[in-house]
Amino acid sequence: MPHIQLPEGLPGIRGAMAFRPETAKPLNDLVEVLLRGPHSLTPGERELIATYVSYLNDCYYCQTIHGAIAAASLDDNEELVKRVKADFQHADISEKLKALLVIAGKVQKDGKNVTAEDVEDARRLGATDLEIHDTVLITAAFCMFNRYVDGLATVQPRDEEMYRERGKRIARDGYAAVSKEYLAAYVTQ
Amino acid sequence: MPHIQLPEGLPGIRGAMAFRPETAKPLNDLVEVLLRGPHSLTPGERELIATYVSYLNDCYYCQTIHGAIAAASLDDNEELVKRVKADFQHADISEKLKALLVIAGKVQKDGKNVTAEDVEDARRLGATDLEIHDTVLITAAFCMFNRYVDGLATVQPRDEEMYRERGKRIARDGYAAVSKEYLAAYVTQ
Repeated sequence: MPHIQLPEGLPGIRGAMAFRPETAKPLNDLVEVLLRGPHSLTPGERELIATYVSYLNDCYYCQTIHGAIAAASLDDNEELVKRVKADFQHADISEKLKALLVIAGKVQKDGKNVTAEDVEDARRLGATDLEIHDTVLITAAFCMFNRYVDGLATVQPRDEEMYRERGKRIARDGYAAVSKEYLAAYVTQ
Repeated sequence: MPHIQLPEGLPGIRGAMAFRPETAKPLNDLVEVLLRGPHSLTPGERELIATYVSYLNDCYYCQTIHGAIAAASLDDNEELVKRVKADFQHADISEKLKALLVIAGKVQKDGKNVTAEDVEDARRLGATDLEIHDTVLITAAFCMFNRYVDGLATVQPRDEEMYRERGKRIARDGYAAVSKEYLAAYVTQ
């Protein structure tokens, strides 16, 4: 049961966002820019970073929904998503993305853990300053989202099909559009 | 030296925000709502939560600037800010705020650490659902800001007077106004 009275029927962050639309707006704007905006990293690659960080933070809702969005963005490759969580160094992703995931794994614990060598490795494999910046900020942002979702004890159904279906919709329509829909339905009540 | 090429002369998060104005906008919008928007917790109380979390995450820039904003919002009471960081249970703050800081301290590590008893304690001392929600989200957001600032190895001058002066301006004018100013000055270059 959530720690506070959240609107019913909205699992995970959706209930929290409907409870507080004033903060939902900038949170959705942030994730839309970071994960879906024009970028040299594909949405699938950025969702893999978000999924990996949410896995490290052990947030069931976030790792499952972002894993589903990642899979939907990567030709429905659910095996790849699982592999990135379990052992990304041996997953079928670019060496550059592996170097960025090393940085993400450090930032997840403490930003000060990132070394000049970590950044140099990523740069040598082709990472730009913007890609390094966004890897740090995506990781930091999911350290926020994960704590937000778990800190309120939101409802997090164990229903893979629900996440899969929703992951496909978000991969197709984006966060801003999908969130507008459920916020409008609940907030006006 | 920062890990990526950030605009010079802008310490801490300001350099990172000037580097990436697309994400600076929602980040500033979020902090403006959370720390300065209309609320039953005063801006000083909310800044104390932000300062305490930044202290737990050992982020020099964030704990110093938000400590300065908190002090400026609380009749320049710098001693109170120090006391909250070191031992908030014996600081001259309300029992309700102490219970919210207990929740903040749990969320800073992992949202799942918050217990129904923690929330019940806060509620018994007068905390509303909105105050509990915002304590969780302020904490989560500073787990993001701290990692963002430290993960890029931003410049964090050891110059207390600089933070004090800036803290007074932000306490007076707000984040949105102050950030617009420096973003405009740098981003158009």
